[in-house]
Amino acid sequence: MLTFVGLGLYDERSITVEGREAIRSADRVFAEFYTSKLAGASVQSLESYHDTDIEVRDRPGVESDPGPILDAAEDGECVFLTAGDTMISTTHVDLRLRAAERGIETHVVHGTTAEAAAASLTGLQNYRFGKATTLPFPYAHGADGVPGSVHDTIADNRERGLHTLVYLDIKVGTGPSGIDPDHEEYMTADYAAELLSEELDCVGCVVARAGSPDPVVAADRLDSLADRSFGDPLHLLVIPGDLHVIEHDALSTLAGAPEESLPDPV
Amino acid sequence: MLTFVGLGLYDERSITVEGREAIRSADRVFAEFYTSKLAGASVQSLESYHDTDIEVRDRPGVESDPGPILDAAEDGECVFLTAGDTMISTTHVDLRLRAAERGIETHVVHGTTAEAAAASLTGLQNYRFGKATTLPFPYAHGADGVPGSVHDTIADNRERGLHTLVYLDIKVGTGPSGIDPDHEEYMTADYAAELLSEELDCVGCVVARAGSPDPVVAADRLDSLADRSFGDPLHLLVIPGDLHVIEHDALSTLAGAPEESLPDPV
Repeated sequence: MLTFVGLGLYDERSITVEGREAIRSADRVFAEFYTSKLAGASVQSLESYHDTDIEVRDRPGVESDPGPILDAAEDGECVFLTAGDTMISTTHVDLRLRAAERGIETHVVHGTTAEAAAASLTGLQNYRFGKATTLPFPYAHGADGVPGSVHDTIADNRERGLHTLVYLDIKVGTGPSGIDPDHEEYMTADYAAELLSEELDCVGCVVARAGSPDPVVAADRLDSLADRSFGDPLHLLVIPGDLHVIEHDALSTLAGAPEESLPDPV
Repeated sequence: MLTFVGLGLYDERSITVEGREAIRSADRVFAEFYTSKLAGASVQSLESYHDTDIEVRDRPGVESDPGPILDAAEDGECVFLTAGDTMISTTHVDLRLRAAERGIETHVVHGTTAEAAAASLTGLQNYRFGKATTLPFPYAHGADGVPGSVHDTIADNRERGLHTLVYLDIKVGTGPSGIDPDHEEYMTADYAAELLSEELDCVGCVVARAGSPDPVVAADRLDSLADRSFGDPLHLLVIPGDLHVIEHDALSTLAGAPEESLPDPV
């Protein structure tokens, strides 16, 4: 049995009770932290909290060489951990499909996600978000500035009055010069706001450390957000579309948006 | 202090460890189950699991008369519980804003959500979903069939190659003849597929009991899904857009989609 368990958003206590019980009854526990990580916990603190050994795999250790994980799942109860929800990343759907091909039973224990937290903390309504996008580091997409596809997604959503969640690039294990096990880099929301503000003149809402005891939620014009700093990772950026009254009030009251930065509610 | 705690998707164990601790240290615990409910837990089983009293409020008791909740939050540690994540529903953003107006500190402990689970269990990629929509009971929107806005949202997403999550109507406390405290009705995915198939001829993917130990994930043409049944609530329906290879394989392998029901991967 291979059970995918989402660790949730921030630290050891972001996991569900069901997830914790799955770890407790596992024979072996694997994890990866290259697609995301828990800002408030280390592998050591997770091992201590769950009283277990965690075998951390790098990208090749999941994608090119999943054999050891699948062997363990064939021999007993095996848990695979990631931050957030395990299936948000394509690569883990692939692992689940490989398990299914080998006749291994799989189960998913869901985790809290950045996407839900972004809607939840900003007060912007979940069902009024369009397609999400990811803003890569310029060196990662091989050109200066913002890829056209990111601006296209935001523009397309805004035309329809929809909000856009912009995931900010995470580079763990690969840096500007290629594979580098020590590389760990998280795009900050002020840097993202600066990149986007070159072509986009509107309000943005930063969400920093969603799921932590002290998340920061801050809305302002993008060029103003570019001049601020929002502390430790992880950061997200939301580009709002049309605002309903309560969304307008939420950005003002909960995110401190200056009145003049916000469009009139519709 | 008013702490909003999401109970997550299914039963007592769907809550995060952080959420459980917040309940333990609360002076008073309120909840509402009219926007959604836990299919695998009752108020009594939650009270017993958390060893606390839970004061369940109906819609007017949250929206028209939130005073008692805010008073309790002013006097001590107050927790407000809902299924999923508490802030997904506009009405609770409103409660949070009212608390802020009274100078009451608020905090959100996130819960797992149907939206993340729908992507996670189907293998359809989170960032390839467009705007979500809700399919109401015909009596609830006052006409036969499917509101034009639902078809518009699906069509608009499909034109862009995006998936659509269709939430299915929940009626608790109001029925066909108005307010009725005993009314509890959950739209099933087969009924939803039948409604949608009158105008839409494509594949759909049902997700039933997300977050439970035995979720059902089933993809087929909408008119075929209409002839099946998927057991106890809650149900969701996803209308896929374009499929990448791994999404195609996931619908086939994990959701049993007949090959001829699926579009070629792009």
